[in-house]
Amino acid sequence: MSSEIKSAAIIGGGVIGGGWAARLVRNGVDVAIRDPDPQAERKIGEVLALADRALAKLTMAPHGRRGALSFAGTVEDAVRDADFIQESAPERLDLKQDLLAEIDRHAHPDALIGSSTSGLLPSDLQARMRRPERLVVAHPFNPVYLLPLVEIVGGRKTAPETIERAKRFYTGIGMKPLVVRKEIEAFIGDRLLEAFWREALWLVHDDVATAEEIDDVVRYSFGLRWAQMGTFMTYRIAGGEPGMRHFMNQFGPALKWPWTKLMDVPDMDEALIDKIVAQSDAQAAGRSIRELEKIRDDNLVAILQALRAQDQGKGWGAGALLKQYEDRLFERAHEAAAGRAHDLSKPLRLLETEVAPDWTDYNGHMTKSRYLQVFGDTSDALLLYAGVDRAYRERGFSYYTVETHIMHKREARAFAPIHTTTQVLAADDKRLHVFHAIHDSAAGEVLAAAEQMLLHVDTKAQKACAAEPAVMARLRALADAHAALERPKDAGRAVGQGRS
Amino acid sequence: MSSEIKSAAIIGGGVIGGGWAARLVRNGVDVAIRDPDPQAERKIGEVLALADRALAKLTMAPHGRRGALSFAGTVEDAVRDADFIQESAPERLDLKQDLLAEIDRHAHPDALIGSSTSGLLPSDLQARMRRPERLVVAHPFNPVYLLPLVEIVGGRKTAPETIERAKRFYTGIGMKPLVVRKEIEAFIGDRLLEAFWREALWLVHDDVATAEEIDDVVRYSFGLRWAQMGTFMTYRIAGGEPGMRHFMNQFGPALKWPWTKLMDVPDMDEALIDKIVAQSDAQAAGRSIRELEKIRDDNLVAILQALRAQDQGKGWGAGALLKQYEDRLFERAHEAAAGRAHDLSKPLRLLETEVAPDWTDYNGHMTKSRYLQVFGDTSDALLLYAGVDRAYRERGFSYYTVETHIMHKREARAFAPIHTTTQVLAADDKRLHVFHAIHDSAAGEVLAAAEQMLLHVDTKAQKACAAEPAVMARLRALADAHAALERPKDAGRAVGQGRS
Repeated sequence: MSSEIKSAAIIGGGVIGGGWAARLVRNGVDVAIRDPDPQAERKIGEVLALADRALAKLTMAPHGRRGALSFAGTVEDAVRDADFIQESAPERLDLKQDLLAEIDRHAHPDALIGSSTSGLLPSDLQARMRRPERLVVAHPFNPVYLLPLVEIVGGRKTAPETIERAKRFYTGIGMKPLVVRKEIEAFIGDRLLEAFWREALWLVHDDVATAEEIDDVVRYSFGLRWAQMGTFMTYRIAGGEPGMRHFMNQFGPALKWPWTKLMDVPDMDEALIDKIVAQSDAQAAGRSIRELEKIRDDNLVAILQALRAQDQGKGWGAGALLKQYEDRLFERAHEAAAGRAHDLSKPLRLLETEVAPDWTDYNGHMTKSRYLQVFGDTSDALLLYAGVDRAYRERGFSYYTVETHIMHKREARAFAPIHTTTQVLAADDKRLHVFHAIHDSAAGEVLAAAEQMLLHVDTKAQKACAAEPAVMARLRALADAHAALERPKDAGRAVGQGRS
Repeated sequence: MSSEIKSAAIIGGGVIGGGWAARLVRNGVDVAIRDPDPQAERKIGEVLALADRALAKLTMAPHGRRGALSFAGTVEDAVRDADFIQESAPERLDLKQDLLAEIDRHAHPDALIGSSTSGLLPSDLQARMRRPERLVVAHPFNPVYLLPLVEIVGGRKTAPETIERAKRFYTGIGMKPLVVRKEIEAFIGDRLLEAFWREALWLVHDDVATAEEIDDVVRYSFGLRWAQMGTFMTYRIAGGEPGMRHFMNQFGPALKWPWTKLMDVPDMDEALIDKIVAQSDAQAAGRSIRELEKIRDDNLVAILQALRAQDQGKGWGAGALLKQYEDRLFERAHEAAAGRAHDLSKPLRLLETEVAPDWTDYNGHMTKSRYLQVFGDTSDALLLYAGVDRAYRERGFSYYTVETHIMHKREARAFAPIHTTTQVLAADDKRLHVFHAIHDSAAGEVLAAAEQMLLHVDTKAQKACAAEPAVMARLRALADAHAALERPKDAGRAVGQGRS
């Protein structure tokens, strides 16, 4: 997805650097990491494991080749062959200036350089660089491998082409680049977070609320709103029929009431820190950071997926972005598949994934409707192979599944790696008769099988019609090749007709 | 769900009052509304239509009887027979004091009274009441019918029992009551929102960002985090292995940097209002408030449902709350069903719902895996009818679906009302053979049918075993009664064996 960029260097390998590495390798970019911490390799490994777990759940879209990951002994070694470098060192200006000067010395002249700083000015970061025009601030949000926003900020010496190039690149790896037009400290996101955080600290300081109570206020109310619409759109809606102007006029007076401690800043003294640490420990209730990270990631994945299905299937906000990204991945895979040689002498292996934890039911097993979803995705993959893509559907043709017989053999638990195989039993110009199986890839066992009948339809007239010749040719070739295979003994059976 | 409370009065019928009304009738409480606006009935009708649409998607749990809704000509008429009164008038202290005094005069002595104020102190609101002990602030968040949080704040004269009673009541209607222990203006939620909003206004005022850019920053980054964890838990995780104390110490210095405009308040003058109104219009891109409300509600429903499935099926945050609420609804329905007389001379009608928009595929039709979900829910309802409830499963027994043959007859589009019927074909001590149909309730047509074989299992031993006698007795009685029905002609067929 990253077009021009094939190799990257990550300088600074903490939670942020690790998150960048995960996003990049997943998008086929080779990554060299440089971090002086002797624990860096272990720590990055843990972030990558978390990211792999989350990204496997996020999308079943085919990602293609995974980038290679290596650890470099010096900054020079890391950046020498990199098309792109992301600096994620601690937030100290002098340290970042030194590091960026070192990166600048050893990198390709045309390498793109991003800094993950959450508040320092790019004009200051550029101070000691010989080629400052290629630096942008590219401020991400944790976890970098899931949250799409990246604030792009240029300094006085940043070239306009660098901003454009950065926008293209971060979009390509599934992100939402937002160009901050005025260079101010803390940009946009951290200004808002900082104002919010100060008020939260006062509430704890004054014993109005505990850390847990404040978090509950957020996640049971406006946090749910903010996952999909920001504060202005929310207030526009709250204003209702009288409109935004009316709402703003209403809000006017309250703005000057003493409803926040805005005129003062709490002292972060030991007493306040002790209080917050104790409350945070109570809130975590013994859960480790790793456990909390997994819960957070599962929640974020589920929210992103939920938003992907909204606004009449176009997706909304971060969900629309995910959908566009997946569409691009599917298109690329389709282009690749069209040229790829498949072994037609055995059932096609079309889908690889794993059982997501939210696919499981109260027995802890993959829930039955998810089997049909996986079989449906397999049929979609088969149709894509045959040339039934978005353009084909936009011409007004599609296949509808008219019948499915599912036979469950074994139960699957969360995280089980699974894949599907497909045998085409028959294909004429209107009907496509297939037999799919879902396999536990680790145990090598069949979990479930499904026999499906699909009908080619004119979606406007809502009636069956002949498929286009190119599609028919591919499906017939497959049916002819698969005719040599043994017919699955579960095919053609009725419910209750003995178990195989 | 509301136990002691059967009838309510809503005083003030705007967006907030309408949202309360929707939540209450949905939970079986009769509601009388009083609002002097001549447009009140139309406006409330629109809020209720929105709420019905959203709540139908939120859960398939059986809500039971819907409360009746009426409009009263006076406050006295509205509150006379109410067990509970919620005041949602405009935010003016004198107006609210008058209204609460009037409510107080005419209400039952033991009626519970809540005020929706977002910032006024309950001690001030109580000033003119003769029975102030029964008043609490119960501050909800828009949309009230979806967002669970309600801040409960007592005044100096509020009785402790009133706080307890309010907690029970709001919990019963699916909400998350959070008791604010110190009586301060704006409570907790609006203090945080206010700090955030001021900073957002400065960013627009200073042309750092537009309304749309600020909203994008929120919804593509920390808004996604805040839907599931608040700010303290998020920072605990961001701190990683070194822990919360380390994180707090790190954050300390930045807190005093001039990263926000906290020392000043923007003038809400015409120029700023004009700018925000213009930016908000651009952001809405011609979408009406109603359209935006529907998008918001669909997103919130999807997020709540996504969170319901997390943390190993226990749910997380607002999702866990939804799950607990649904469990209670299911239990109540089961208790009712156990005592109810079913007409066994025809297929059981077990499930009523509608096609949610996010159940539809790229053709605009209900996606195939959702059919299996609805059939699965129908089997669950049948099992619940037979006595297979949570307690039964906790004893280590359950039914697994081993085979399903789905036959699709017609396509269903979003919002189509559907119901299911079930004919039991056979039941022995281990096997349950059923034939379900999904009907379009409006068109009176069968959309799909499914033949299923279920097996009774010992879930610990993971093998088939005999069902408990009470369950068997109910299923056999059903099978015997249904033996008199005509056998569905689609039963016993294999895939491709001719279409009925």
